[in-house]
Amino acid sequence: MAKKPQWVIDKERGRRAAAADTLWLFGLHAVRDALMNPAREKLRLVVTRNAADKLAEAIAAGGIAPELSDPRKFAAPLEEGAVHQGAALEVRPLDWGKLADLCAPGDGAPVVVLLDRVSDPHNVGAILRSAEVFGARAVIAPHRHSAPETGALAKTASGALERQPYLRVTNLARTMAALQDLGYVLIGLDGDAEVTIGAALRETTQRPVGLVLGAEGPGLRQLTRESCDGLAKIPAQGAFGSLNVSNAAAVALYAASEREAG
Amino acid sequence: MAKKPQWVIDKERGRRAAAADTLWLFGLHAVRDALMNPAREKLRLVVTRNAADKLAEAIAAGGIAPELSDPRKFAAPLEEGAVHQGAALEVRPLDWGKLADLCAPGDGAPVVVLLDRVSDPHNVGAILRSAEVFGARAVIAPHRHSAPETGALAKTASGALERQPYLRVTNLARTMAALQDLGYVLIGLDGDAEVTIGAALRETTQRPVGLVLGAEGPGLRQLTRESCDGLAKIPAQGAFGSLNVSNAAAVALYAASEREAG
Repeated sequence: MAKKPQWVIDKERGRRAAAADTLWLFGLHAVRDALMNPAREKLRLVVTRNAADKLAEAIAAGGIAPELSDPRKFAAPLEEGAVHQGAALEVRPLDWGKLADLCAPGDGAPVVVLLDRVSDPHNVGAILRSAEVFGARAVIAPHRHSAPETGALAKTASGALERQPYLRVTNLARTMAALQDLGYVLIGLDGDAEVTIGAALRETTQRPVGLVLGAEGPGLRQLTRESCDGLAKIPAQGAFGSLNVSNAAAVALYAASEREAG
Repeated sequence: MAKKPQWVIDKERGRRAAAADTLWLFGLHAVRDALMNPAREKLRLVVTRNAADKLAEAIAAGGIAPELSDPRKFAAPLEEGAVHQGAALEVRPLDWGKLADLCAPGDGAPVVVLLDRVSDPHNVGAILRSAEVFGARAVIAPHRHSAPETGALAKTASGALERQPYLRVTNLARTMAALQDLGYVLIGLDGDAEVTIGAALRETTQRPVGLVLGAEGPGLRQLTRESCDGLAKIPAQGAFGSLNVSNAAAVALYAASEREAG
C-alpha cells in the first residue's frame, strides 16, 4: 500500500497525544463547555472574530484572554480536517482525583465502566456520553492502548468529557482488584458467555457494579477476563453480527440502571 | 470560514451518492461480505495482487473477474482517505422488496426501526449492526435526508448492510400508517416523554413494535411525532447529556428484546 493505513495514523496520533501534557479542544460546543468548566486548566484560546462573538459569555466566564485569528489562516495547531468552527482551546487533561474517592460506594448502587484497550476516540467519546446519561461514577481505562483525551474524543463526547470522569490507570487488573476491595462486582461483557447481562445484573441486587468491555475484535484480554467476577453476554437473536463497543456499553449501562426496576 | 464545514461536505457527498444508482464498497471486510452475497449485483471489482490473494475464496464465490490494480495508483474512484485495503467493489444497492412482505407479522413479536432524517452514515451503519444483532425485521428511513447506502456506511455496518434490510421509503408518515395497518405499535423515542421505554414496551406485550428515532438535535419532526402511537424516553440519571442516536437505538432494541423476559 502506498499510504499508511488509517489505524496506523490513528495509533501514532494517539501516541503523540498521550505523550503531550496538553491538548487542543476545538469546535464551538467543546470549547464552550471547557470554558464554562472551572476545573479545566486553560492555556490558550484561539478564536475568529465570529466565534468570539458566539462564545462571548463563555469567554467572560472562562477568564482567559482570546487570541483573535484570521479564519483563512487559523492559528491553532490542529489536525488537518478538524472541524473547529473558528474556536480552539489548549487545555490540560482534567484531574479526576483518586479511584477510591471517585468510586467509594455510598448511596444507591454505583456503576463504573472499565474499558480494556478501546482505542477509537469516537467509541470512547460515545461511551462517556452514555456513562453520563446513566449516571456512572467513572469510565476507567489503562494509560496505554486506550484513546487519550483529545479534541476528537471531546467532540464525540459532546460535552460529557467536562463532566464525566474518565480515569486513566497504569494497570487495569490492579484497578479491578481495588474495585473488588471496595465491594464492586465486576461483570465482563463476552458474546460467548452463558449468562445474559440482565440475569447477571439481577444477581448483584444493590451491590456496586463494574461493567468491563474489551476492544472490538480481540475482546477482553485473558488477564482482564480472569479478573472479572463473572462474564455475561448481551443476548443476540441472529447468528451473525456483533454490537459496536459503544452500543454494547450503552445497553449494559441501561440494563444496570434497570436493576431496581426489574 | 475558508473551508466548507464537514457537514456540508457530508451532505453534498450524500446527495451525490443518493443520485447515483451504483456505489463503491471498499475494505477487505465489506468487499468480502458483498462478494459472498448472492443477492448483491456486482459491477466492477478492483483489487491489488495482495488483496486478491486474501479474497481468493470470495472472488471465486462472487463470480466476477477482478481487475488487478497497482496499490500506488489504485484504480477505483473512491473518496480521498477511504481505507480501502486494496479492495473495492462497485455494486447496485440491494433490493429488499416490499414493506408489507418484509414486515408482515408472523411468529414472535417483530420489531422494526424507523429513522427520521438520521443522516450520519456512521450512526446508520451502527444501527444496522444493532438491528441485526437484535433481530429487527428492517431499518426504515425516508429517501431524502437519510444516510444513503455508501461505502462508508457499509464499513461502519461491518457486514450488516449485506444481511440487515435497510429500506428507503418516499414518505415516512405514510409508511408509519402502513405499519399500523399491519398491527404495529409505533413508539417514538423522546427525552421529554413521561413514560419510560421499558414501561411502554411492556404494554405492547406480544404486538409488533416500531421504534422511531429522530436525528440528534432536532429529534422527531412534528408529523413523525404525531404519527406515533406513543412517546417514550430512555430514563436518564443525570441532568445533563444525551445518548448518541445509535446508542439510543441499541438500548431501545435491547429493551424490546427483553419484553418477553421482563
